[in-house]
Amino acid sequence: MVKKQKLKIIPLGGLDEIGKNLTVFEYGNDIILIDCGMAFPDDEMLGVDLVIPDITYLVKNREKIRGIIITHGHEDHIGSLPYVLREISAPVYGSRFTLGLVASRLKEHGLAQKTKLKPVSGGNTIRLGEFRVEFIRSNHSIPDALMLAITTPVGTVLHTGDFKIDPTPIDGTMVDLARIGEIGRQGVLALMSDSTNAERPGYTMSESSVSVAFDEIFRSNVHRRIVVATFASNVHRVQQIINCAHQYGRKIAISGRSMLNVISIAIELGYMKVPRGTLIDLDEVSKYPPEKIVIITTGSQGETMSALTRMAFSDHRKITIGPGDTVLISASPIPGNEKSVFRVINELFKKGCDVIYESLADIHVSGHACQEELKVILGLVKPKFFIPIHGEYRHLMRHAALAERMGVHKKNVFIMDVGQVLELSADTARISGTVPSGKVLVDGLGVGDVGNIVLRDRKHLAEDGIIVVVVTISSDTKEIASGPDVISRGFVYMRESEDLIEQIKACAKKSLDNCRSKNISDWSSLKSNVKSDLGEFLFQKTKRNPMILPIIMEI
Amino acid sequence: MVKKQKLKIIPLGGLDEIGKNLTVFEYGNDIILIDCGMAFPDDEMLGVDLVIPDITYLVKNREKIRGIIITHGHEDHIGSLPYVLREISAPVYGSRFTLGLVASRLKEHGLAQKTKLKPVSGGNTIRLGEFRVEFIRSNHSIPDALMLAITTPVGTVLHTGDFKIDPTPIDGTMVDLARIGEIGRQGVLALMSDSTNAERPGYTMSESSVSVAFDEIFRSNVHRRIVVATFASNVHRVQQIINCAHQYGRKIAISGRSMLNVISIAIELGYMKVPRGTLIDLDEVSKYPPEKIVIITTGSQGETMSALTRMAFSDHRKITIGPGDTVLISASPIPGNEKSVFRVINELFKKGCDVIYESLADIHVSGHACQEELKVILGLVKPKFFIPIHGEYRHLMRHAALAERMGVHKKNVFIMDVGQVLELSADTARISGTVPSGKVLVDGLGVGDVGNIVLRDRKHLAEDGIIVVVVTISSDTKEIASGPDVISRGFVYMRESEDLIEQIKACAKKSLDNCRSKNISDWSSLKSNVKSDLGEFLFQKTKRNPMILPIIMEI
Repeated sequence: MVKKQKLKIIPLGGLDEIGKNLTVFEYGNDIILIDCGMAFPDDEMLGVDLVIPDITYLVKNREKIRGIIITHGHEDHIGSLPYVLREISAPVYGSRFTLGLVASRLKEHGLAQKTKLKPVSGGNTIRLGEFRVEFIRSNHSIPDALMLAITTPVGTVLHTGDFKIDPTPIDGTMVDLARIGEIGRQGVLALMSDSTNAERPGYTMSESSVSVAFDEIFRSNVHRRIVVATFASNVHRVQQIINCAHQYGRKIAISGRSMLNVISIAIELGYMKVPRGTLIDLDEVSKYPPEKIVIITTGSQGETMSALTRMAFSDHRKITIGPGDTVLISASPIPGNEKSVFRVINELFKKGCDVIYESLADIHVSGHACQEELKVILGLVKPKFFIPIHGEYRHLMRHAALAERMGVHKKNVFIMDVGQVLELSADTARISGTVPSGKVLVDGLGVGDVGNIVLRDRKHLAEDGIIVVVVTISSDTKEIASGPDVISRGFVYMRESEDLIEQIKACAKKSLDNCRSKNISDWSSLKSNVKSDLGEFLFQKTKRNPMILPIIMEI
Repeated sequence: MVKKQKLKIIPLGGLDEIGKNLTVFEYGNDIILIDCGMAFPDDEMLGVDLVIPDITYLVKNREKIRGIIITHGHEDHIGSLPYVLREISAPVYGSRFTLGLVASRLKEHGLAQKTKLKPVSGGNTIRLGEFRVEFIRSNHSIPDALMLAITTPVGTVLHTGDFKIDPTPIDGTMVDLARIGEIGRQGVLALMSDSTNAERPGYTMSESSVSVAFDEIFRSNVHRRIVVATFASNVHRVQQIINCAHQYGRKIAISGRSMLNVISIAIELGYMKVPRGTLIDLDEVSKYPPEKIVIITTGSQGETMSALTRMAFSDHRKITIGPGDTVLISASPIPGNEKSVFRVINELFKKGCDVIYESLADIHVSGHACQEELKVILGLVKPKFFIPIHGEYRHLMRHAALAERMGVHKKNVFIMDVGQVLELSADTARISGTVPSGKVLVDGLGVGDVGNIVLRDRKHLAEDGIIVVVVTISSDTKEIASGPDVISRGFVYMRESEDLIEQIKACAKKSLDNCRSKNISDWSSLKSNVKSDLGEFLFQKTKRNPMILPIIMEI
């Protein structure tokens, strides 16, 4: 008898962080990947554009990979696909809308031709090696999100992806709780479930609840132009704005590249219905009276280059905003974006606009399940093992506590780290080891070439700037032949600090003279002497620590 | 008959921002200042330690200044005193506790000797030139906050400072609404009122409501050590923690420099009562069983160097934290600090602590009035003119709308900019001009020497680093004598990018050779050629824009 293999679940991202979701399922010679997301850089990752998971493990096992399954089309679930698909080759499975967004992203990276995209729907089942993956329709803040029931020789794992339970979703297709219940009754080995809102009691409101607030705002703003900012990917939110605009006889113009992109994909694939003649070009806005216009725009997070930010700071090429405008920000600030969002709101107020945002009206709902919804899933699935996913550590902790209250044994709850390997048999689970994992930083075209040393230097330069000291030394006499010259960037403004610059020169000269009198002449000693003398002098003088770069040339 | 002068009110900070509160009241030859605060730097002010108001106007009018009146001891009201008092000289008026904090701050800056501190209390009135200033006791998240009724020949201005209406404050002295009502009945020319919470409906809960949550937590954690982080200046919060600790028979140890400092001032001045034998030294903590200890600490904002952050990251010299600890964060994250706070919370969870924070329990209340309280003040004061203060633009807008609904004429509401001059007579008010104003950046010992150019360079360096290209050129032949050498900091890690570095050298050489063949030999043209050729090459190659610093020496 062949000993049964174990199922390995290896998260390469998405735990103890919001972003870069990527989970490896491995059984014997087969690997499937669930999601392939990116994360936004932390504040200390200066100059970094985005963060992707370390995929050393995937590269090493590339011949085992049978497919990549995407639960939905948000950046934190698809954003690293272009990078992963450069290193490995595998078909990508997802709903039609998800794959619409994936295709557009791959096209930008010139990867559209070489990647097979395989559309699936709720109710479909596919086989990938030893894995059978059933797709279950779900609700989220983007259309066509799917949950996954992944059946393996040791049992079934239910992976929720990101979800909420929306009894009245805009597309009329509520998450398939009946099917989840059936799968639960048949027995689920492990549940991996979305922890984003695990701190929040109660239920997340239905997406359709937003239309009540929209309707009220449209009714009380019949004489004003309306501008609405929201997430481009929230197609159902945009649909509600379109419906409202149509009902109140307004034309709709779109601003923002990603908004245009997502809306055109949504319309093309039939996920959005726009009454004929309602959409107009941004250039045509001026042809209509303001009260007949709604502008739907990006920028709900206060992003510097976004359309709404440009409007607020009078930097938009086509739209000028002012006292006749009511601006709705139909989104919450993602943690870390609060100050940027409020900066834009303040600027809009200064322009004389009326601004309606979340603290003042119910014009946004979350896309993630709150505690009661999480409990419904736990109650239907009744898993033997539970792995909270998609959250910072505090979210995972709260979700774990919920699961325990719902009857999962404490020892059967695994709060995993990225890179850990969870090995499951039909009745056991344990952390059996780790694989290489971590954050790979993308800066421009460079993937992974910005590491700790570069970031440390950037931080140093950001805080105190740099001083370059240039001096030539005669190779015969070891005397200073020219210089020291001093160049400062980001330390003090040179033209207004001539005295200090002279003192720096004198200090460097003294340091070199000292070296000469002590017969120190190797370059590295000279440099380190200049560095430490100057550093000390400048800290004394300014309580700052600029980076000091001595350049010594011999002639 | 002498024509009556007008009263000038000139805010130099605190409007369209949270921080650096400083308002000038000027009448004829007399000036008084209300508050003298600092602000924290914005994200784009890289390396800046703090921000103070531009006080050009004060320096120019220094002989008119009769006094500085401080409403309460928070940093955004006292933090720029040491800088202002270097430039001007005036007595400082405030409550005993406020002056206790001011004295400690001035001592650090060696200004304690030369500054007259004049304690006042609610009910006191002082005369400063043509101004009569009456102090009114108030409630806020720091003891002994005062409101001001400033009477001038043209009328009385009521300045609330920061306040809430707390019917059950810890020190038993509720804001003197009766006196405010009396002053209102006598007629108030203008009201300047705290706008921080103008977006929030309802009432702010009483400070004493927090003790209910504390009591519950202490009761359910009788077998665990308790660590509480809060604002050092929130003496009444600390008092409630002390009371709770005493009641449950625990000793109290203090961690964090500012916490120690404020507590010792509060005890010394009688604002805090600690039962004898309750306070112990941090070194003694290990002598007691954990369940007999409460540690009160700084770090409720996730500040990098704070005691709580050090504990969370195992970097505290004296306290090791772990599964036996329950940590309370008795504060809200100030906008912008969310990510730092959650980083610390996540780390504490990872250490095995139980962490209780605002989203989970009622262990914090605001120090600022919500809409209903703001309306109470507007209703009592019935001012002719209204100037919302202490808030971002959105807060000022909301507060203005409230005032209009409370009966202040729209044309009598002034949402002012920093630096604007509001001129008031007994029945008129208008913006009559501006004075120099703005943000002065403090970096180390430098005050105002970091300006836009330095910040722009720091941002550039932070995002893409710097490349220094060094080359010597023969003065005879104009040929390259040595180099080009390349040094990179914060761009790419040199040891792992040898190819790129070689290409950079080749590109610089080619650029210089081109110049030579075109007989270009002046340094600035050489440099700008190298800069633009290299910049283009690097952007092509990496999609990054490092700062490029060519250093060309002739020999």
